[in-house]
Amino acid sequence: MYDVNEIRRDFPILSRQVNGKPLVYLDNGASAQKPQVVIDAVTRAYAEEYSNVHRGLHFLSNLATEKYEGVRGTVARFLNAPSEEEIVFTTGTTEGINLVAYGWAMPRMEPGDEIVLSVMEHHANIVPWHFLRERQGVTLRWVDVEADGSLDPEKVIDAIGPKTKLVAITQLSNVLGTVVDVKTIAAAAHEKGVPVLVDGSQGAVHMPVDVADLGVDFYAVTGHKLYGPSGSGAIFIRKERLAEMRPFMGGGDMIREVHKDEITWADPPMKFEAGTPGIVATIGMGVALDYMMALGMDNIAAHEARIADYARERLDGLNWLQVQGKAPGKAAIFSFMLDGAAHAHDISTILDKKGVAVRAGHHCAGPLMDHLGISATCRASFGLYNTEAEVDVLVEALELAHELFA
Amino acid sequence: MYDVNEIRRDFPILSRQVNGKPLVYLDNGASAQKPQVVIDAVTRAYAEEYSNVHRGLHFLSNLATEKYEGVRGTVARFLNAPSEEEIVFTTGTTEGINLVAYGWAMPRMEPGDEIVLSVMEHHANIVPWHFLRERQGVTLRWVDVEADGSLDPEKVIDAIGPKTKLVAITQLSNVLGTVVDVKTIAAAAHEKGVPVLVDGSQGAVHMPVDVADLGVDFYAVTGHKLYGPSGSGAIFIRKERLAEMRPFMGGGDMIREVHKDEITWADPPMKFEAGTPGIVATIGMGVALDYMMALGMDNIAAHEARIADYARERLDGLNWLQVQGKAPGKAAIFSFMLDGAAHAHDISTILDKKGVAVRAGHHCAGPLMDHLGISATCRASFGLYNTEAEVDVLVEALELAHELFA
Repeated sequence: MYDVNEIRRDFPILSRQVNGKPLVYLDNGASAQKPQVVIDAVTRAYAEEYSNVHRGLHFLSNLATEKYEGVRGTVARFLNAPSEEEIVFTTGTTEGINLVAYGWAMPRMEPGDEIVLSVMEHHANIVPWHFLRERQGVTLRWVDVEADGSLDPEKVIDAIGPKTKLVAITQLSNVLGTVVDVKTIAAAAHEKGVPVLVDGSQGAVHMPVDVADLGVDFYAVTGHKLYGPSGSGAIFIRKERLAEMRPFMGGGDMIREVHKDEITWADPPMKFEAGTPGIVATIGMGVALDYMMALGMDNIAAHEARIADYARERLDGLNWLQVQGKAPGKAAIFSFMLDGAAHAHDISTILDKKGVAVRAGHHCAGPLMDHLGISATCRASFGLYNTEAEVDVLVEALELAHELFA
Repeated sequence: MYDVNEIRRDFPILSRQVNGKPLVYLDNGASAQKPQVVIDAVTRAYAEEYSNVHRGLHFLSNLATEKYEGVRGTVARFLNAPSEEEIVFTTGTTEGINLVAYGWAMPRMEPGDEIVLSVMEHHANIVPWHFLRERQGVTLRWVDVEADGSLDPEKVIDAIGPKTKLVAITQLSNVLGTVVDVKTIAAAAHEKGVPVLVDGSQGAVHMPVDVADLGVDFYAVTGHKLYGPSGSGAIFIRKERLAEMRPFMGGGDMIREVHKDEITWADPPMKFEAGTPGIVATIGMGVALDYMMALGMDNIAAHEARIADYARERLDGLNWLQVQGKAPGKAAIFSFMLDGAAHAHDISTILDKKGVAVRAGHHCAGPLMDHLGISATCRASFGLYNTEAEVDVLVEALELAHELFA
């Protein structure tokens, strides 16, 4: 039984007020709030159990190492990765994708090689590939979305040609809420011998993820969107791809031996984790994933689907509101503009006065904005603790904005 | 008046026991403990004031952005950087130096170009340059330390030749405690037109740092050694060098515009900060730096000099102990081995039974270990909260280890 009101009590910030109104936090696409268990884990780690990890042998170092390394198994369970040795800790999806770009793609891509990506990618899954375009002549092949915001997997598959070296695609659009059929794309790409990278920044938050079933090569997640600390993250990298990668960042922990003129690397995943990591953030991420798994990813997805249905129904009733993205089965992420051409920023400012936190802007999705012919939207993005009542508050606030701008 | 016992009460972990003994935490070189104000700042950030930064316009996002961006000025004050626009946030020194290696050095170095570094560098200030050696034929020119562990600045200066493109040097050895005369080196390097990067991982912890006075181009620090959260850090980069750098990691926030076939960058320092940062860790680092500055860096240095004097005296009295590094003015970092050839790990395990946390191993300083002809040491590294009484506990525990191994 998914009791959202009980769940809300786990998140201390949700009981606060903003501008004299109860906080209605609908900016989960940017970052999620943290349950008390995560906050407590962070506090305890610093107040009672802190040390650097790995190279120490004293009590606190062993304790911190055990807690930190234990998270690798938690992430593997969360993503159903075959082995925790295929989990590399990162500071978030951005670092995860840059790791793949620098460590895997950069040394193997030649001028004219192609990367296939959708037009609705987040900048984290665009800019690292632009580097390869600018610096070594790689071609980016963009696949457009349909009028309703859905992505036809066949169009992605058709874009894979003889020079394609990678498909880099989101599982869930942070602007449109579109869910991508990654499994079909990965199966076809692999038939053509092309690896697939998935930006799981949003996907892993809103639905059960099974990287073994999806059959992807790289799946990157970010802890702060998963109700964990900022600065945490991880990427699943299939063993075969790990073996093909050279190190990205250099420093402590990722080496076996360092001499003046010779250097050897640690085995993966350590080979890709340089220096003192975000120890406590990672420990907190583990607690956050355990929290989500205890609620049940299916239950979270079902709850959010109810919220999405209700929000769609309410927003569809506002004939002066243009919602971007109506793909079947879309997640509870709604980008919109108001008639009367008020700028998205003005709308979000009015909503804020009513305690409703939404984001306004390009949402780090420049090519999608170009495709839609707009420069910005307002975005209400829901999480596991949001309620139908909060949808009502959003709609009331939008009605106020509409009146003001009409 | 520097009251170390009052200061100790600021650090909750220092009152805990380990193996039934009061914790004597002498592993500060690896990572420092956190004062309650830092822990509270982290807790508050998550429980009351959390949101993603920058692109939001709602109350919590503005609040988090203000707190996060405020830290840039704090770091600038801490390092006496001319402008906070010369402060780039990182996840620690490792990322900071990799940023310089990938963003500044990689695009400008050619085969045969040289990087001058000392043999006592930490792997964080070695491995990124090994990448350039392996990948693009750069030569590493190593400067040895003297028999007492000191580094003769003239030898560094002499190593700078017509092909030298960078001097990369620590300000304070994490193994020997040696303090390097960075100012003299930087002045001479600049006369020869060569920029200077300083690994400030240890230096900034133990002495006042003034990058303007030192005249260096890059100065990297790591938050977790500065009594701040793990996963935080910053690097000072002189404006002229920033202007020469291309982006390192790609993603949100570091761009101005992203289109399908064209991309433009944000201005520094944002250009070098991709994706959602470690928001809360950075906020906590700001509080930690404020804490240190309130104590006074001169006062901290004076306190630690007293500890260093006392520890040297006590350790010198143990004629079966070999301390590595006796440079004049060295910091309170003591690496040692015991007669009887007990492995460093065994010593640290015995010390741990007495509650004394030290580190054993190569301390991420492979070339220095080669130079010294050893594979590992035990290291006791002191911080602002350590006491003479703790030196006594260390010595007692060492005497026990000596008896056991004799």
